[in-house]
Amino acid sequence: MLKLFYTPGTCSLASHIALEEAGAAYEAHRIDFSKAEQTKPEYLAINPKGRVPALVTDRGILTETPAILAYIAQSFPEARLAPLDDPFEFARLQSFLSYLCSTVHVAHAHARRAARWADDPAAHEAMKAKVPQNMAACSDLIERAMFAGPFVMGENYSIADPYLFTIASWLEADGVDPARFPKILDHRNRMAARPAVAKVLAVVQS
Amino acid sequence: MLKLFYTPGTCSLASHIALEEAGAAYEAHRIDFSKAEQTKPEYLAINPKGRVPALVTDRGILTETPAILAYIAQSFPEARLAPLDDPFEFARLQSFLSYLCSTVHVAHAHARRAARWADDPAAHEAMKAKVPQNMAACSDLIERAMFAGPFVMGENYSIADPYLFTIASWLEADGVDPARFPKILDHRNRMAARPAVAKVLAVVQS
Repeated sequence: MLKLFYTPGTCSLASHIALEEAGAAYEAHRIDFSKAEQTKPEYLAINPKGRVPALVTDRGILTETPAILAYIAQSFPEARLAPLDDPFEFARLQSFLSYLCSTVHVAHAHARRAARWADDPAAHEAMKAKVPQNMAACSDLIERAMFAGPFVMGENYSIADPYLFTIASWLEADGVDPARFPKILDHRNRMAARPAVAKVLAVVQS
Repeated sequence: MLKLFYTPGTCSLASHIALEEAGAAYEAHRIDFSKAEQTKPEYLAINPKGRVPALVTDRGILTETPAILAYIAQSFPEARLAPLDDPFEFARLQSFLSYLCSTVHVAHAHARRAARWADDPAAHEAMKAKVPQNMAACSDLIERAMFAGPFVMGENYSIADPYLFTIASWLEADGVDPARFPKILDHRNRMAARPAVAKVLAVVQS
């Protein structure tokens, strides 16, 4: 059975929701960052990066949200979570996932993980101060140029939807009023009402 | 015909090499960062992110290196640049691409693009100072835990190879001695000797 290692409040929520939407049989194992469990030898043996998510499969362990999301979509094709038979549409979807991972999540991480990129506490404060501006700029680009509607990629729900939902749930903490981005906010509200999302949130927030 | 927008010294090199290895018919258009061409309306109409690479196809425009690389592999299956029929192996490949994009490239970018994440010049210097340590840590993880050999993913050349080659070519400028990472350095040397790589480098460096 698939095993997902997750931590509340992190990007692992996207993979967690995707597993639920796919109807996958899986177990979810919580990694407690407040106890630094992600830095312990037991977890580093699963993911040497010391991050979540990690997905244990019968073939081996996968990390990195875009890779895990595409794996779920390809492993459960009947759930229709990605346009698997159209390389261009699949690439368009992957481009969105990659933007969230390498630009938007990175922009967010400069608030609480600034120590990754500088040692000076004053630099951490300078990075934190710019997070609202960067997260707003990313949200603006998504709202204006990327979000097709009613779902992220258009008519069909896909693995991009739980990933945007996850990152959009960080906006208030990042100093951005989501009301400035009505498409993203409406999407977030519609996502929260989906049974699969509500079920996962109940587990994660318990 | 496919059109790749590229800039010398950037991650667009990975997609450029992949197109060449795939035997694709394509045109390469240079975007000159020294003239800030990536910020001009003509280019923002192609890629509103103001970054390279961008790949113009007859279906539309694609951005983000992992998405473009997978698109090339899927569009030219006879070139065998990815394990297209095995979702787990494809995910393992995508996990490597995603790590390069969202962690290693981001670590590198803190040297010359620190202004993305803070306004204070002192913070830029603090970020720049940590780049050698972060790029060495990333290289160590690749060398120790990810690089299968003889190619990145194992016996078969894939889209991961030009991407690692591209980022490994930045190590000296990032203050890292590549001799500390013999697998990565040997791979870089073998990559440089491939006809497709030499052909692309001759164009990019002209």
